[in-house]
Amino acid sequence: MPLVVQKFGGTSVGDADRIRAVADHIARTRRQGAEVVAVVSAMGKTTDELIHLADSVSATQPPREYDMLVSTGERISMSLLVMALADLGVDAASFTGSQVGIITDNDHTRAKILEVKGDRLREALAAGKVPVVAGFQGVSTEREITTLGRGGSDATAVALAAILGADVCEIYTDVTGVFSADPRIVPEAHRINRISFDEMLEMAATGGRVLMLRAVEFARNHNVPLHVRSSFTWEPGTWVVEEDADMEDAVVTAVTHDTSEAKVTVSGVPDRPGVAARLFRALADKSINIDMIVQNTSVKGTTDISFTVPNDDLTGAIETAQAHAEELGASGVTADAEVARVSLVGAGMKSHPGIAATMFETLADEQINIDMISTSTIRTSCIVAEEDVERAVRCLHAAFALG
Amino acid sequence: MPLVVQKFGGTSVGDADRIRAVADHIARTRRQGAEVVAVVSAMGKTTDELIHLADSVSATQPPREYDMLVSTGERISMSLLVMALADLGVDAASFTGSQVGIITDNDHTRAKILEVKGDRLREALAAGKVPVVAGFQGVSTEREITTLGRGGSDATAVALAAILGADVCEIYTDVTGVFSADPRIVPEAHRINRISFDEMLEMAATGGRVLMLRAVEFARNHNVPLHVRSSFTWEPGTWVVEEDADMEDAVVTAVTHDTSEAKVTVSGVPDRPGVAARLFRALADKSINIDMIVQNTSVKGTTDISFTVPNDDLTGAIETAQAHAEELGASGVTADAEVARVSLVGAGMKSHPGIAATMFETLADEQINIDMISTSTIRTSCIVAEEDVERAVRCLHAAFALG
Repeated sequence: MPLVVQKFGGTSVGDADRIRAVADHIARTRRQGAEVVAVVSAMGKTTDELIHLADSVSATQPPREYDMLVSTGERISMSLLVMALADLGVDAASFTGSQVGIITDNDHTRAKILEVKGDRLREALAAGKVPVVAGFQGVSTEREITTLGRGGSDATAVALAAILGADVCEIYTDVTGVFSADPRIVPEAHRINRISFDEMLEMAATGGRVLMLRAVEFARNHNVPLHVRSSFTWEPGTWVVEEDADMEDAVVTAVTHDTSEAKVTVSGVPDRPGVAARLFRALADKSINIDMIVQNTSVKGTTDISFTVPNDDLTGAIETAQAHAEELGASGVTADAEVARVSLVGAGMKSHPGIAATMFETLADEQINIDMISTSTIRTSCIVAEEDVERAVRCLHAAFALG
Repeated sequence: MPLVVQKFGGTSVGDADRIRAVADHIARTRRQGAEVVAVVSAMGKTTDELIHLADSVSATQPPREYDMLVSTGERISMSLLVMALADLGVDAASFTGSQVGIITDNDHTRAKILEVKGDRLREALAAGKVPVVAGFQGVSTEREITTLGRGGSDATAVALAAILGADVCEIYTDVTGVFSADPRIVPEAHRINRISFDEMLEMAATGGRVLMLRAVEFARNHNVPLHVRSSFTWEPGTWVVEEDADMEDAVVTAVTHDTSEAKVTVSGVPDRPGVAARLFRALADKSINIDMIVQNTSVKGTTDISFTVPNDDLTGAIETAQAHAEELGASGVTADAEVARVSLVGAGMKSHPGIAATMFETLADEQINIDMISTSTIRTSCIVAEEDVERAVRCLHAAFALG
C-alpha cells in the first residue's frame, strides 16, 4: 500500500470549514488505497496572534519560552483535525513533535532536526490509524520544546517522509503549484508540472516563495518526491523529483525575482591574497548572511568587491565593512538598498551555452542596466534596479517562451 | 528558606496586565525571602474558546484529542508568565504537566494524579529559578497528555506542594477568601480567617464554590496548608489548615447552599433487607451520582426512600427508579427538581448538641418547610423548596451570629 505524507499549511487549516475539507481529502486518499500521515501548521494567523500576545506581555522573551508558546498553535490544529477525521469515521491520532521523536539541536526558535525516531508513528500506522503530526516543532537533546523556524512544517513533513520511506510528500498550500514566474507579475506564467530538486533549490534560493530551501534540500538528500498542490482545488500541482532525461528539454524552467536584498561595494581594494577572506570572515563573525559576491578583475592593482545581503542586515554589513576598510586598504564603502535580483533557472542551461547572452541582450533591449552578474551551472542571476525588476521578469519570461 | 506554591486561576492571568501583576507579586514574594513555584490556569476564557472551536469543527471529539487541545491553554499562560518574570529580571522556566512528571491514570478529560516525579522542579529550584507549571494537566501511564477535569489546577498546585514539602499552597482567585455565606445573598457575610480541612471539605461538598473538593481532600491527606486569597487585592485571605484547639470556639463556621440538586422519592417500598441495595446498585450502574439518601421508618411494613441527584442526572434517575419499581414492590416514583440544600458547617457542632434543633426552629420561625434532613458530625443539611433557599441562608446566618 503506498504511503503518502500530506502537509497542510496555515491557510489550508485556517478555519473550521477548511479543517473539515482537509479531513475529507485525507479520507478520500485513504479510500483510494493509500496510507496517510498528515502534518499540520498552526491555523491561519494563530502564530502571529501568539507572538502579538507575547509582545503585549513582555519585552523580554526567553527563546525557550517563545518556543513553548508558539508550539501550541500546531497542537490546536492537529487535535481539531483528528476530531474532524473522527466525525468521518477515520481512526486518527495526533502527535506533537516531541511525541514522534523529532529530536533537534538546542538552537531555540530555529532548531535543526538531528534525528527522527518515529516509533509511535509506525505503531499508529500499524494499528490502521492516520497519524496527524504537529509541524514546525521538536524536542531538543536537552528535553526542551523547540521550533524549527521558517519553513519548519515543510521540513517536518519531508523528514517524516524520509524516515518512513513514503512514496511522496504532498505539500498543500494556497497556490496550485510552482510557476514559471510570479503570476502577479506575469499573468501568462504557467504551472510547472515537473521540476528537478536542483532547479527547485535554485528557485527557492532566488525568490521562489512556495517552498523553503531547507525542505527542498532535505527532500533532495533523502530522495523524497515532493508534490506541491492546492488545498482549495485539490488538483495535481508541481512534482519536485530527481532529474530525469525528459527534463533536459526545458532549457529555462522559470524566472524568479527577489527584492529583499541590498548591495554593498567595497571599492579600491588592493589586489592581494587574503583581502576578500578578511572581509567576509568579519561579516561572518557578525552573523551577516552574504548572498552574491562579485569581484572585478583588478585595474592598476586595485579592485572592487560587491556583495548582496538581506535588507535587514544592510546596516550591520555597512558598519562592518567600514570598520575594516582601513585595515583592508580600501578607498571606500558604498551601498544601495534599491536593488533586486532577477534569475533564470533551468537544468538545460548546463548544455545550452547561449542562455546568459540571450538574457543580457533581452535586458539591454529593454534598457535595463545590469549591476552585478552571478551564475551557477543551472542558474544565471542579474542584480538590477528595484524599479526595473518587474519589467525584467516579464521580458525574460517572454523571451524564453515560458508563457 | 520557606517554599511557597502559588496557584493563579484563569481570571488572575486573564490578560497581559494581569499576567504582569502576577509576575510582580512573584518577584515580591521572592524579595521577601521565599522560594516560589507557580502554577497557572489558562487565561480567562481560553479554555471555553478552544472548546467552542472544537464544537465548530466536529461533533465527534475523542477524549485524547480534547485533552491535547485544551491543555494548550495553560501552556500559553505559563510561557507568557515566564516572559513577564524575565522582564523583571527573575529567572524562571515553564514546565508542562508532562515535563514535571505529573503522572495520571488514562481517564481522559478527568484524569486522576497517580504520582508526581518533580525531578525537573527540584533541579530548577536548586538553580535558583522560579518554576512555572501548567495546571490542570499531566501525562498518563500510556504517555498521553491528560487533563484533570474540574478544579484540576488546584489539584496540580496541592500535589506539587505536597511532594516538595512546601510551607503553604496559596490559591489566588477573584474573591478575597472563603466566606461565612455567599456574599451575594448575605451582604454581612464575613471572610473566614482560619478553617479546618474537614470544615472546608463539608463546605466544598455542599455548595461552597471557592475550592473544589478534590484539592481540599488532597491537601488534607498530605497536610498541605492552603491559603485562599485574591490576586486583585493581594491581601491575606482564608487559611485552610489542620484543626486546632482554637477552632472549637466557632460552633458554626458557615452557611452554604446548593440549588443544583433534585429530589426523587420511591414510595411504598416493602421494608425488607436488600431493597435499598438493589435500588442504589441500579443507579450506580447508570453512573448516577447520589448525594443525600433518607429512608423513613416503616409504617405498616412499607417505607419511602428519598434521595437527591444533580439536576443533570434527574431524568436518568427517574427512569432507573421506575424501571425497578415493580421489582422492588414500590407503589410509585415521584420527583421534584425545585429543591435546594441549605447546610450549616462547623467543627464545634461535634460538642454542641443543640445546633440542629436551633436550625430547625429558625427555619420553622421563617415558615420554611423542611423536606429532608441529613447530618454529619460537623454538618447539618436540610432540603427545602428552591424558592425558600435564599431566605433560609439569611435567617440561619443571622441566627448563628455569623455576621
